[in-house]
Amino acid sequence: MQETFHVVPTSLHDALVETAYQHRGYSQIEAAAATALCSGAARHGIRTHNALKALHLDELFGSGKGGCVPGAEVEVKETRFKATQVWNANRKLGQAVATDAMNTCMKLADEYGVGVVAVDNAFHYLWGGGYVMDAAKKGYIAYTNCTSALAEVVPFGGKFPTLGTNPHSWGFPTTDALGYPVVLDWATSTIAMGRVEQFKREGKALPEGAAVDAEGNPTTDPFKVAALLPFGAHKGYGLALLNELFGAVIGGSLPTIRGRADKAPAGEKTTTAFYFQVIHPEAVDGKDYALGRGQAENLATVIKDILGHGNETCMLPGQLEAQAAARCERAGGLLFSEAEIRGFKELAEECGADTAAWELSQFQKFEG
Amino acid sequence: MQETFHVVPTSLHDALVETAYQHRGYSQIEAAAATALCSGAARHGIRTHNALKALHLDELFGSGKGGCVPGAEVEVKETRFKATQVWNANRKLGQAVATDAMNTCMKLADEYGVGVVAVDNAFHYLWGGGYVMDAAKKGYIAYTNCTSALAEVVPFGGKFPTLGTNPHSWGFPTTDALGYPVVLDWATSTIAMGRVEQFKREGKALPEGAAVDAEGNPTTDPFKVAALLPFGAHKGYGLALLNELFGAVIGGSLPTIRGRADKAPAGEKTTTAFYFQVIHPEAVDGKDYALGRGQAENLATVIKDILGHGNETCMLPGQLEAQAAARCERAGGLLFSEAEIRGFKELAEECGADTAAWELSQFQKFEG
Repeated sequence: MQETFHVVPTSLHDALVETAYQHRGYSQIEAAAATALCSGAARHGIRTHNALKALHLDELFGSGKGGCVPGAEVEVKETRFKATQVWNANRKLGQAVATDAMNTCMKLADEYGVGVVAVDNAFHYLWGGGYVMDAAKKGYIAYTNCTSALAEVVPFGGKFPTLGTNPHSWGFPTTDALGYPVVLDWATSTIAMGRVEQFKREGKALPEGAAVDAEGNPTTDPFKVAALLPFGAHKGYGLALLNELFGAVIGGSLPTIRGRADKAPAGEKTTTAFYFQVIHPEAVDGKDYALGRGQAENLATVIKDILGHGNETCMLPGQLEAQAAARCERAGGLLFSEAEIRGFKELAEECGADTAAWELSQFQKFEG
Repeated sequence: MQETFHVVPTSLHDALVETAYQHRGYSQIEAAAATALCSGAARHGIRTHNALKALHLDELFGSGKGGCVPGAEVEVKETRFKATQVWNANRKLGQAVATDAMNTCMKLADEYGVGVVAVDNAFHYLWGGGYVMDAAKKGYIAYTNCTSALAEVVPFGGKFPTLGTNPHSWGFPTTDALGYPVVLDWATSTIAMGRVEQFKREGKALPEGAAVDAEGNPTTDPFKVAALLPFGAHKGYGLALLNELFGAVIGGSLPTIRGRADKAPAGEKTTTAFYFQVIHPEAVDGKDYALGRGQAENLATVIKDILGHGNETCMLPGQLEAQAAARCERAGGLLFSEAEIRGFKELAEECGADTAAWELSQFQKFEG
C-alpha cells in the first residue's frame, strides 16, 4: 500500500486552484469556496474530488457547457417557515452554494435546534463529506444528500438506469470523543462508474452485484457494463430513491435527462437539487446520562463499547479521512502523485500561472 | 405464494388487543395507541409486528420485566430551541410515545418547516414504518430511527455484536402520485435474528454475508450463528452506527447492555432512544417546476421516469404494504393464519375476553 507522493505546500496548491477558478470566470468568493473544498478533499485523501477532478468536471458539465454559471446569484425564496429555507441557486458553483447552505443550516440550528436548506437549480457540490465534516468539526450533527448529475443506476429489479449514484453524507461531532468527526459519505451504487474504467484498465472482473449489461443482466465484465446497481439490494435502492424524491419535491425534473441538456425535451430542467440539514446536539440532549456523564463523554463511552470486545481493529466512518489528514500534517503539505503534479503544471499553463513552481523536482518526496 | 388466511373483523381484533394491553396494566390511551399500530401492521402485512408479537415482546422485555412501565408519564424537557423537543419517556409504552412524538413533529413542522423530537428512556416502538407511513399519508416527509433493544450486530470488520439491528424508516407523501406513500423501513442487519430461527426450522443455509459464528467468522450455518452482520458492508455498518450515535447524544448508555438489565453495572442505563423528524413539503418547495407542474405532479412525473424505460416491474418501497392493505380491504378484515388465530384465542383466555368469538370456524377463509 506504500505509494510515493510529492509534497505540495497547501498555499501553492490553493493559490493555483483559486487562480484557475477565476480564470474560468468565477468570482473570488466562488473560487475561494471551491478551493477550500478541493484542498480539504486532497488533505483528507479524497482523490476523486481533488482540484484536478473538480476543474475537469467544471469543463465537461459546468462553466464549459452552461451547466454552471460563474457569478450567478442565489435567490433565497420567500417562506412562511422559520427553521427552513429554499434557495434557487441559478446554477451557481456548487461548492460555494453548499458551503453557504451548510453555514445557514448551522445558524438556523442555533436558534431552532434544527435547520434545513433545500436548493433548486443547482450544480454539483462534489464532496458532500466535506460540508458535513466541517459542520461536525464545529460541533453539529449534519446531513446532506443530492441528486447526482447523471442517471447511471438501475432500480432494484429493473434494467435501465434511472437513478443517480445519489450520495448521502452524515457528520457527527465526535472530535472530543475520537479526535475527528465520524463522517459517512458514500454513493448508493455499489461502485462508481470511475471504478468500472479502472477495472477495464486493470483487466479485472467487477465484484458481484455491482453492474448490469445492456439487457439488464448482472455482469462482472467491465467491458459489458451498461449501468450500475445500488448497493445492498432493495435497501440501497431505497436510499438512492430518497434523493430522487427529495429532488422532485425541491424542483428537480426527470432523472434520465438530468445533466443531459442535449437530450432534454423543451421546457424540462436538467439541474440537480441539494438537501442540507443540521441538528444542534443540545437540541436532542436528554441530560440524563448514566453515571453523571456529559453528552460528549457519553458519546465517547458508547463508541468505546462498540469498538471493544474484540472489535478493536474495526474502522469508523471518517477514520481514513482523519488518517489522511494526519499524514499530510506529518508531510507538511498536500500529497499528490507524479501524474497529478503534471496535471497541476498543465493547469498552471492554462491559466498563465508560474509553471516553474510546478516542476516535479520542486517537491519533496513522501512515502506513505 | 398463495396462502390460506382467516378474515378477522378489524373491530373484533382491535377490541381484543386493547383489552389485552389494559389487562397488562396499560391505560386506555396507551392501549389504543398500541392497538392502532398493531392493527396497522397486520393490515399492511407486517406480520413480525402484529399484536401477538407485540404482546409477546411486552411480556419478555416490557411490563413483564420492568422494561416498560404502564401508565408512565412523558416528561417534556425544557429547551431553548423552538423546532425541537426532548422527551424523557420514563419507559412509557413505545407505541404511545412514538405516536405522540410524530404528531408533535408534524405540529412543529407546520410552524417551523421541520420538527424534531428526541426521546430518552424509551421502550421499543415496534414498527417504525407505521409512524412514518401515517405522517406521509397526512402529507409530510417523515423519518425515524431508534436503537434496537439488543446488540446483535457485529461492526464491519469486527467479531462481537455491539450494535443493534437499528432500523431506519422514511415516509414520503406520494399518495397523490401513487395511491400510497413511499415507505422505507428496514433494519441495518442483512437479516433479522428471527429469520435465523426460521432457517434452523427449515434446515436451510443462510445467505452469504448475513451472520458470523462465535469466532467472528462468516457462516451460513444457522446453528452456528452467534451474531448478525450489517447489510451492505461498511455502508450498512455506518447506518447502524448512526442510530447508536443518535442514541448516545440523546441519553442512551452502552449498546452491549441495552435491554439486558441483568448484565448492567450499577448506574448504567439499559433503555433505548428514539429520534423523530418531520419536514413540511412546502418548506422545501422551490416552486420552479418544469412545464408549470406543481409539487405533487412533479413528484409523480419523476417516479414515472424512474419506473419507466423497461423498469415497469420494479417495486417501490411501501408498495408491498399498500398491496397488503388493499388485500385486507377486499377481504373485509385483517388476515391471519390458523396459528395466529389460535394465538388470539389464547390471548382472549388470558385476559378474560370472549373466546368463542375466536373459534377458527367463526372466520371466513381468504386465499391470497
